[in-house]
Amino acid sequence: MSDPIRISEIFGPTIQGEGPLIGRPTVFVRTAGCDYRCAWCDTLYAVLPEHHREWASMSPADVMARVNELAGGQPILVTVSGGNPALQPIGELIELGRSHGHSFALETQGSVAQPWFAKLDWLMLSPKPPSSGMATDWNMVDACVAAAGGRPRCALKIVVFDDADYAYARDAAARFPTLPVYLQVGNPAPLVEASTNDDTHRDDLLARFRWLIDKVTADRWFAATVLPQLHVLLWGNRRGV
Amino acid sequence: MSDPIRISEIFGPTIQGEGPLIGRPTVFVRTAGCDYRCAWCDTLYAVLPEHHREWASMSPADVMARVNELAGGQPILVTVSGGNPALQPIGELIELGRSHGHSFALETQGSVAQPWFAKLDWLMLSPKPPSSGMATDWNMVDACVAAAGGRPRCALKIVVFDDADYAYARDAAARFPTLPVYLQVGNPAPLVEASTNDDTHRDDLLARFRWLIDKVTADRWFAATVLPQLHVLLWGNRRGV
Repeated sequence: MSDPIRISEIFGPTIQGEGPLIGRPTVFVRTAGCDYRCAWCDTLYAVLPEHHREWASMSPADVMARVNELAGGQPILVTVSGGNPALQPIGELIELGRSHGHSFALETQGSVAQPWFAKLDWLMLSPKPPSSGMATDWNMVDACVAAAGGRPRCALKIVVFDDADYAYARDAAARFPTLPVYLQVGNPAPLVEASTNDDTHRDDLLARFRWLIDKVTADRWFAATVLPQLHVLLWGNRRGV
Repeated sequence: MSDPIRISEIFGPTIQGEGPLIGRPTVFVRTAGCDYRCAWCDTLYAVLPEHHREWASMSPADVMARVNELAGGQPILVTVSGGNPALQPIGELIELGRSHGHSFALETQGSVAQPWFAKLDWLMLSPKPPSSGMATDWNMVDACVAAAGGRPRCALKIVVFDDADYAYARDAAARFPTLPVYLQVGNPAPLVEASTNDDTHRDDLLARFRWLIDKVTADRWFAATVLPQLHVLLWGNRRGV
């Protein structure tokens, strides 16, 4: 008897817009529910309990059937995101997907460690900086790295909106000297007026991106990788693309 | 006595805007001179002989001194581009840079193979599709892969403007099944009126990017990676950023 997975949306194939797998064709499996409430969360529909009627409880087999349908039966990268997917039982889904030839990347803030992290191909740890309003329990991030056990490729992805976030990112990188660090430009769309159009968002995101590149290069932090969110540049804040 | 290297420009640190190292801080060493004349070349100042007065003949030590100055003495990724840098004697520069802790990526169309390719960390082979107006000698691309000898990480990067380019990219990928393939959206700026502004370029580039993503996902070509040119989104067609 499989534990069901709480799902917000399954969509794709599209490309991964951020992090080490940027540009890779992928199907997204977005789980529902989160232990965080980030100030700038751009997927509140997968986070806030009042959206629970939009969520589905699906067996690993049902999730995999939908992934296979979207991918036309071809092996693909499956990106498990949320919400916080570490709150869900994903281990069986990974095993099932692997038998179909899929690979798995999972993105989590690192607040909950799961033994099945070791079954992933990629574990993206994205602890949340001060601008999120959340506090990081670094012992739990350590526990996530330990749970991965050196099997999946593991990376840090830190969203940077401002100087305090940048300082946090430097601290995070210093704590995990063996993990590659991806700095991601913050997407301010959830913080600004809904009437702001895509062009304005895009200009703002690119301005933030230039600012972050300037900071990293002025600091000679050459081990960092600095990336935008391509999906925001491509599609603004529309869902499921 | 070192062979001098013909240099168009050395600039950075900035980020790599394309390919597998997208987002990585790097110093660019752009060599001068090219055996190709691509229709949409966006670095003609490094290609056309009439620009030769802007070029410098520099020893490997002088190039390295400039790289070290720009990088503030820190180890960094050095990206050797052109023109076609395979026309220049780069082997000694790589050895010298490695003694300073630098790593090296080189981008070439694959028309000239050099034994020093094996000293690189990354060899990006970018054979030019039909829209370039150039014809590919696949035996030479094979020779480049052979010269790399499995030591540097090697990738194919194909610019795609249209359906014919896309078919070429599929063919290239089929010829080199072990190499990762990066599809890059063409930058049409050199083909359009100089008066066209950055916003129009950006909208056009993003529209092309969406088109390419749609093609790749519709084809279920999930092994490809699809990327834009971040530097064009960030800085339009300005030099040296």
